[in-house]
Order: sequence, then structure tokens, then C-alpha cells
Amino acid sequence: MAHSMDFKIGIIGGGQLGKMMAQEAKKFNFTVNILDPTPGCPASSVVDHQIVGGFYDDDKIRELVKCSDITTFEIEHINTQVLNELVAEGHTILPSPKVLEIIQDKSKQKRMLNKNGIPTARWVMLNDDFVETINDFGFPAMQKACKGGYDGRGVCVVEKPEDLENSSMGESFLEELVPIEKELAVMVSRSTKKEIKCYPVVEMTFDQKANICDNTVAPARVEESIKNRALELAVRCVEALGGVGIFGVEMFLTSDKEVLVNEIAPRPHNSGHYTIEACITSQFEQHLRAITGLPLGSTELIIPAVMVNLLGAEGYQGKPCFEGVEDILRIPGVNLHIYGKKETRPYRKMGHITIVDKDLNRALEKAETVRKTIKVISEG
Amino acid sequence: MAHSMDFKIGIIGGGQLGKMMAQEAKKFNFTVNILDPTPGCPASSVVDHQIVGGFYDDDKIRELVKCSDITTFEIEHINTQVLNELVAEGHTILPSPKVLEIIQDKSKQKRMLNKNGIPTARWVMLNDDFVETINDFGFPAMQKACKGGYDGRGVCVVEKPEDLENSSMGESFLEELVPIEKELAVMVSRSTKKEIKCYPVVEMTFDQKANICDNTVAPARVEESIKNRALELAVRCVEALGGVGIFGVEMFLTSDKEVLVNEIAPRPHNSGHYTIEACITSQFEQHLRAITGLPLGSTELIIPAVMVNLLGAEGYQGKPCFEGVEDILRIPGVNLHIYGKKETRPYRKMGHITIVDKDLNRALEKAETVRKTIKVISEG
Repeated sequence: MAHSMDFKIGIIGGGQLGKMMAQEAKKFNFTVNILDPTPGCPASSVVDHQIVGGFYDDDKIRELVKCSDITTFEIEHINTQVLNELVAEGHTILPSPKVLEIIQDKSKQKRMLNKNGIPTARWVMLNDDFVETINDFGFPAMQKACKGGYDGRGVCVVEKPEDLENSSMGESFLEELVPIEKELAVMVSRSTKKEIKCYPVVEMTFDQKANICDNTVAPARVEESIKNRALELAVRCVEALGGVGIFGVEMFLTSDKEVLVNEIAPRPHNSGHYTIEACITSQFEQHLRAITGLPLGSTELIIPAVMVNLLGAEGYQGKPCFEGVEDILRIPGVNLHIYGKKETRPYRKMGHITIVDKDLNRALEKAETVRKTIKVISEG
Repeated sequence: MAHSMDFKIGIIGGGQLGKMMAQEAKKFNFTVNILDPTPGCPASSVVDHQIVGGFYDDDKIRELVKCSDITTFEIEHINTQVLNELVAEGHTILPSPKVLEIIQDKSKQKRMLNKNGIPTARWVMLNDDFVETINDFGFPAMQKACKGGYDGRGVCVVEKPEDLENSSMGESFLEELVPIEKELAVMVSRSTKKEIKCYPVVEMTFDQKANICDNTVAPARVEESIKNRALELAVRCVEALGGVGIFGVEMFLTSDKEVLVNEIAPRPHNSGHYTIEACITSQFEQHLRAITGLPLGSTELIIPAVMVNLLGAEGYQGKPCFEGVEDILRIPGVNLHIYGKKETRPYRKMGHITIVDKDLNRALEKAETVRKTIKVISEG
């Protein structure tokens, strides 16, 4: 059967994920429309059309969905009510708003996981009468907001019950502070035809200060049995969600070698950026294949990779400028991505660098050099 | 030293090469302006700005060059006079119009190569008194137009001196019909800092009917000594030209194992498309690094690849439609590029497919399947 391949893809959000998704969509010559409040946002110059509007602006969301065959998103903080209405009217939004609703509320997400027998860290909802509920929970523990957390926001460590911050955080829960050996992640795609494929298990490391994932190591340096367990859990998560698209499943490897699911991102994920250079099919292309019902691509890792986030340096704000960029481009295997945000701010994700090398240890060494060499400052 | 990385790149031509170059430029967040006569040309939706105008429209070329820090091109048939004027006015055009002038006239190109001791097939200019000159040249031979040839146009086989087509071809020369074992190609980049890097030697095969390169095999299946000879000659070509940018050097491997230079393309080349997926740095990124004076990237081949051109099928004209596309996307390692030309025509380059596989023979088998399976037809 002949296929016109002329999909019109709508993306809610025109940041770096929307940009990279659009770049892959244009490889297939799909039409791409985005909704983003910022004119000149990273995706703006690589798409066919930008609707300038906020993610809670129902009219603009309607406009985007109506001019697209399939709408998807690069962020999860969107008004799902209007998305549900649009689905009821017959529009295609993938992953579905129902999936988004579960993901948006971390307690709902955890309840769904546990209901499906997927292990997570022990947790308990914090209600008005929380003091009784949690006295025997065990401290220190994590307090996490049910909604709105992102890149380390909405999370804090609680030393004792009296420290519980009830006011500013809103609805929240308490989570066991699990002794973590490593943080792992698996990207999983599931298509409209229910085909499922996993990418290799990777390791994530975090910047302690900003609590942002700043480093991904592919493949993860863990035993096969742990990899298999992580892959199995990741697939179960996405099947339990019934999600269509690409999903980043973040996991903890505890010090007693248990794998626990931390949370799921219903979109391309920072820990999957390495797939652009290191895998046969990138996470962005895979997402597009999944939502358009095309066959999923091979997720084979063809070369080891380390991804380093390029965060805005502390003490700088304004038009970005890159210190050491020529030095890092001289290193064989360095792939630089500059997102094109107009302004740098401390810890803002301004780009990323994927270092590929047939020898993972050499890639790690190069990543260390890269991290020490490049710095995003501001002009003047 | 900090680098703002905010280059404005102008590209003359917005076809598939301009599109892929722009895609890589946006990875670095460069601004991209293109000049192309066709609104909605392949590059149009992935660039910041298109100037609609022809390649011989001096005013439009001026407009492009003036709004760009560095101007480059994806085609070689451009009016060099205006480019020379613009360079004299202080604008940067790379490769330089002087290089372009040599390339545009195949006889000038051959003369330059021979002057630098670079072997080519034996050739002789056809002048008004050509009958005397060429009677002892040896037939059959190739007649080639000095200017304007592209994708098999401006070339014909001449059985005997009387068949020489003098009228329609314009200025032309006669070239020995060398017994060819293989056609080889090497992409070479040379930067403004005079840094030089070669990509691996590849094999090209041609569609006999349309005389268009329809298949690239990377790496070439030839002995090391031949590879080394091809690499050496390719570097000498680009050094002799004094070119800055990326160059495709097409060569013949004769049946007695001699390597002869056929011609040079002063731009990204069809035989280098495989670098997008199979090499650490793509030919398009390398070109941008070369013209902006950034360090050149590694040209290492990380996985064997076969590139197949996706040509419009005979008998179809109109809005393109892809037969067998889902079948090929199911094959692991298939990377599909659809250029986004609005209309298909017989033998028009509508896209390409790069098949990567750790085993080159398996990649070749898959390429054969791909070629048999996919067909660009027209709608309705």
C-alpha cells in the first residue's frame, strides 16, 4: 500500500525536546506545528508554524490540535481538560490525556504502578492528619509534591516529622529515602499498533546542587541480570499505562540490588538524548514512528556514549556565550547541541554534548574533560 | 576565549543538500538563510529565512550574502561574477568563487588536476578543427560538455569521430573510455584554518539508465593500498584547489588498479550522505565546521553503511507517494530521508535511505531488499 507520509504533527512546547523532535520529523518531511509562549523559542526556526500561546491557553491548544493530524507534547504540565474534550471530538492526541493525568500526579502514578505490581520506594500520602500517619514512617525521608515538580523542584529531604513542609508544597507525599547505588533509565516506545521496543539501560548522574540530570552513561555499567530486570519493569510500566509514544522510565538501583521505579516521563527524555548519535533510531524518530503507527526502528546501541548537559554557569545571565567550545570540538567524538535559548541563567539547560567512543572508559574521560572545559556564560 | 556561536549562514540553493546542511546548522543554533527560486523547496521549512530568487539573479544573491556572515552553496551552477564582486567588497563566500570557476568548467578542472600531477583519464579539448585533433584519440570515447553537466547530463558515449555531437553540447572535450572496475569517492574537508580531514573511501554504483549515483557502499571493498592511494589523491585535489569547505572527489579504479580522478564537487555530495548515520561527524556538520573555522570533527566510520537513492519511478509525475515504505521501515538499520519535493518525476531524487549494519554484507542484502520494495509513485 502506498503511503503519502504527509503527517501534520502538532507539538505542545517548543523547547529543546520539541526542537529535536521537529528536526527528526522534517527528515520524514512531516509538517510540524508547535505551540509555545515564546517567539523565537528553540523549535521555532525548524518548524512550519508556531502558534504563540501558553500551555494552559485552551483556545491556542484547540488551534494547534485542529491544524494537526496528531498532537503530542514535550512537557507534561498541560491542561488535560481541553485535551480530553478534543479527543472526545475525534482528534488524535498521543500519548493520550488519560496517560498524562496519571503522570501529572506523582501519587496517582505511584498508585498505578503499585496496583500493577511494579515496585517503587515505600511511600505514604500526607493528609491533614499526617502527623499520626507518618510518625513511624522512618526519617530522614523525601517529601514530594504530587503535582508540578520538575528538574528537582517540588522535592525536599525531611529530617524529622516536624520539618514537614505542608504549606507551600500543596498536596504531597512522603517517600522512603532509599539507599541508592545508581539511578538507571530506560526509554521505551509503544506504537499505535502496540509494538514495543526498549532502548538499552543507561545510568544517570545528577548535579547535587541543582538536582538536574547532568550525565548519562550508555550502556549502564551494571550486571546483565539488573539490566534485564530494568528492561522488564520499564516495559511493564508503559504497558500498565497503555501509553503510545516514547517514555522515559527512571529507576533506582538500591544498594541491595533491587530495582525500583522512580517515575515515568511521557515524552522524549534527557536520558535518551544519547540515542541521536549512538543508536540506530533516535528517541525522537522513534516517538514519531510510534504515534504515526509506522513500524518502530531498531534501538540497537552502535557505539558507547556519555551525554553531558550544558547548563548555564552560576553568576551569569543574558545572551549566551560558550567558553571552551573550540577546545571541546577538537576532541574526537564530541557532538555539540546548542538549543538556541535566547538567555542563559544558572543551571538552565542550554544544550548538551554527546561523546561517543568505541571504548566507554575513554568516552567517560573525554566527558570529564568536556565538563571541565566548556562553560556557558553571558556576553559582555 | 568565549565564542558566541551565532553565525549567520547563507546557502545558495534550498534543495536536499541545503536542507540537510541547514538541519546540522540548527544543531549548533546557527541562523540559516537560503536563496532558492521555489517557495516550499526542501530546505524552506527548516531555515530562518528564504529569499525567493534564481541562482543567476544578482540582486537576490547580493541580498543573501549581505544578510549572512558566511555564504556557501549546495549547487555549482551559480553566477560567479557577482560572487567575485561580493568577495572584493569584503564578504565571505566559501568555497571561494575562484574554486567554483575551476569546478564549473570541467576542462579547467582537468587542466588544474593535471598541472598538479593528479592523474585523470586521458582527454583532449574539442575545437573547431577537432577532426584532425582526435582521429587518433581512440574510440569509443566519452564526449563531455565543459559546463552545465549534472547527474548524467552533458555526457555521451561516442562510437566514432563522425558521431561527435558538436552543436547542442557547446564547448566540450573528449575523454578516454577507461575500463572501470569501480567508481570510488572520498569526501574531504578543509577548514579556514587549513585543517584537512578525509572520510573513508566509498564505492558508488550508478543507475545505468539515468546515470545517477544510486548506491554508495561504505567502506569500499578494495585493498588497503588502493584506499590509501584514493585518500592521498583526494587530499591533493583539495589542496591544489585551495578549497575551504567539504568536497566530494569522484574517482575511477581502472581494471589495471590505477586510481584516476574523475571530478570534484565543491559541496556536500550524494556519496557522503551515509556519513549522517555512519560517521561520527556528518559531511554537513563538517562543512559548517570548515567554513566557520571551527575544529574539524572525527570522520571515523562507526558502522558500515549502504546508501540507496530514492528516485521517482518511471511513469509517475505529481504529488509523491511512497509504496512499500512501512515494509522498509520494519528492517532494522533502515534510515529514511524524504526530501519534501512537492512533485515526483522519473529519476528525480526524492529522498535517500541509509542502511547501517555491523555486517556490511547484511547491509548490502538489506539494501537490495529496500531497492526492490520501495517505489516513489504519484497520488491518485
